[in-house]
Amino acid sequence: MRPVALLTDFGLSDHYVGVLHAVLEREAPGVVRLDLGHAFDPGDVWAASFQLRCAWPHLPGDCVVLAVVDPGVGTFRRAAALAIGDRLVVAPDNGLATAIGPAAEVVTLDWRRMGLEEPSATFNGRDLFAPAAARLAAGADLLSLGEDLVSNSLLPCPLPAPVRTGSGIEGTILHVDRFGNLVTNVRAEDHADVTTAAFVGRIARLVRTYAEARPDEVVLLEGSAGYLELAINCGSAADATSLERGDPVLFNK
Amino acid sequence: MRPVALLTDFGLSDHYVGVLHAVLEREAPGVVRLDLGHAFDPGDVWAASFQLRCAWPHLPGDCVVLAVVDPGVGTFRRAAALAIGDRLVVAPDNGLATAIGPAAEVVTLDWRRMGLEEPSATFNGRDLFAPAAARLAAGADLLSLGEDLVSNSLLPCPLPAPVRTGSGIEGTILHVDRFGNLVTNVRAEDHADVTTAAFVGRIARLVRTYAEARPDEVVLLEGSAGYLELAINCGSAADATSLERGDPVLFNK
Amino acid sequence: MRPVALLTDFGLSDHYVGVLHAVLEREAPGVVRLDLGHAFDPGDVWAASFQLRCAWPHLPGDCVVLAVVDPGVGTFRRAAALAIGDRLVVAPDNGLATAIGPAAEVVTLDWRRMGLEEPSATFNGRDLFAPAAARLAAGADLLSLGEDLVSNSLLPCPLPAPVRTGSGIEGTILHVDRFGNLVTNVRAEDHADVTTAAFVGRIARLVRTYAEARPDEVVLLEGSAGYLELAINCGSAADATSLERGDPVLFNK
Repeated sequence: MRPVALLTDFGLSDHYVGVLHAVLEREAPGVVRLDLGHAFDPGDVWAASFQLRCAWPHLPGDCVVLAVVDPGVGTFRRAAALAIGDRLVVAPDNGLATAIGPAAEVVTLDWRRMGLEEPSATFNGRDLFAPAAARLAAGADLLSLGEDLVSNSLLPCPLPAPVRTGSGIEGTILHVDRFGNLVTNVRAEDHADVTTAAFVGRIARLVRTYAEARPDEVVLLEGSAGYLELAINCGSAADATSLERGDPVLFNK
Repeated sequence: MRPVALLTDFGLSDHYVGVLHAVLEREAPGVVRLDLGHAFDPGDVWAASFQLRCAWPHLPGDCVVLAVVDPGVGTFRRAAALAIGDRLVVAPDNGLATAIGPAAEVVTLDWRRMGLEEPSATFNGRDLFAPAAARLAAGADLLSLGEDLVSNSLLPCPLPAPVRTGSGIEGTILHVDRFGNLVTNVRAEDHADVTTAAFVGRIARLVRTYAEARPDEVVLLEGSAGYLELAINCGSAADATSLERGDPVLFNK
Repeated sequence: MRPVALLTDFGLSDHYVGVLHAVLEREAPGVVRLDLGHAFDPGDVWAASFQLRCAWPHLPGDCVVLAVVDPGVGTFRRAAALAIGDRLVVAPDNGLATAIGPAAEVVTLDWRRMGLEEPSATFNGRDLFAPAAARLAAGADLLSLGEDLVSNSLLPCPLPAPVRTGSGIEGTILHVDRFGNLVTNVRAEDHADVTTAAFVGRIARLVRTYAEARPDEVVLLEGSAGYLELAINCGSAADATSLERGDPVLFNK
């Protein structure tokens, strides 16, 4: 049986996450379950996509990801299941389903084809997504869950990609972590020649560890998920720069 | 082995929840464990009862529920284990044990009969309830844990039931969720003829989805747990009405 | 396979804890995982040591503890794995590794000997500690993870021990819990003759249960983890006394 990794915006003060776990265990007894996080801001597809992207390389090879951040529940947004490499993803078609990248195969979930009761208008995580993930964990084919779909008809993930321009690599801040580090969308291994980052009239130089930074210096370094980030040793780069999620950073040799 | 679903008010900043899990694994190695929630207000039997009631229909069929919200620990309140359908519940006799409804069989937990050390005066969750749940998970009979008890001598759950009167169904708000929705104790399927809800001089009409509501209109709809709730599309019904947990709502055709 | 108990300061709003679980499942499929807590203040080795010490007696007998509170990540602090009784501990050598007491065997983790990629400078929990815990869970020897180390060369745990003096037992407040109870480092079973505690000119008498205290009286009693604590029935001893973590308390017959 495949393990299932859960990622939602349900928070931890209601029964919602517990019920997803219960449905998984009920429908696929003994299934291995992993919590990737449930405390994202409600409806924040951007944040959930970012966290999923960071965790992805470290998941079990045959994992099923059950990702439910679903502000459009009860409307006509589609529900999707995808195959990406040997892993499978179940998620709403609101940008979260495409957080990782191109899929080899995509279906739209169909509760009738799955033989389920009609899902409630407010909790598809419990009524549609978790049962789909449980079946995939137990070995079901994607096509037993719904209709085949052309992959590139899914809504694009809201996370912007870096852009190469005449003046360098234009990146974007994807995440401000709880230490005030500003994590961008530029992967260090994809841009090994980058040595500086420019933002609001300032320049940060690339260092390997925090210890190389001078006091209060905003530096550029590779964070734990492989992205270049702006940081201050023992301080908050967010406070020092007033930069926020979505702001641009220009990378150069 | 039966899976165990845990629900407590222990919070997540201490070792208490972890120790319950450890005791379960120590006493019943390999037991499947599910967290239904641990972030309820300390001692809030009402909230824990509500969340357990919402999760109940979705739990594995042979689940053991380990529910510990226990402000009376160390006093003479009894500890109970119950059989309800194919499921078992272990909980203090403070109203939480009766959150789900009538039990076919009830025992009061007896540490001597279980061969345990005398429980501490402050952490019966670890010393009494979790060992009892572990034994039930591993297949023990209720009567191996303590003395048979007449079910209706347990303290009643604090959640009020709706009352049918000459002027309609008198319901009560059981829960204000984090979106400001006001969840009542009236189950939609039990009262299919309800079309309006009256509260503090106002009337809300029944709709099926949020999208049917006009801007700022307080509407009545069936929530994900099957209860009728007052809600505002993209807004907080709690803020708009000043209604709180425990307030009355009158339902009519 | 041994179960693994996780304790970190990673919080619950990022993917970090989820990734530890993912690495454990990836490297030791089917391993039993227990969360002992992840919401300690970042870098607070004292708090993590205290919580681990409280949970320790209740863990499965053959448990592997994966404890990562690691403000020194990326510097030259060593990483350790220890055998204590039948249990194993994996932790940074910053005082957390010695929270429980003397080890029969200690090694410093060596990523080369383990055949791992070089760990990132910022997330050794994922890249070094979790892989080490997974191998121990699967049955590896300590010496397969790194070099033998003399146990007493590890950094001492920051939690102070009580001191016997001419005037009694000098204890220290280790923890203020969320009810305002002041938990000291004096174990009741080690000091069965203690009957009073003196602090800032006041005296508290030993009671067995909260119910024995008079209204607003600060009393001394044995808490659930076996330590003597100052408490007020239905009140906060921290507020009433202004005592804090690290403050002294003098115990007498």
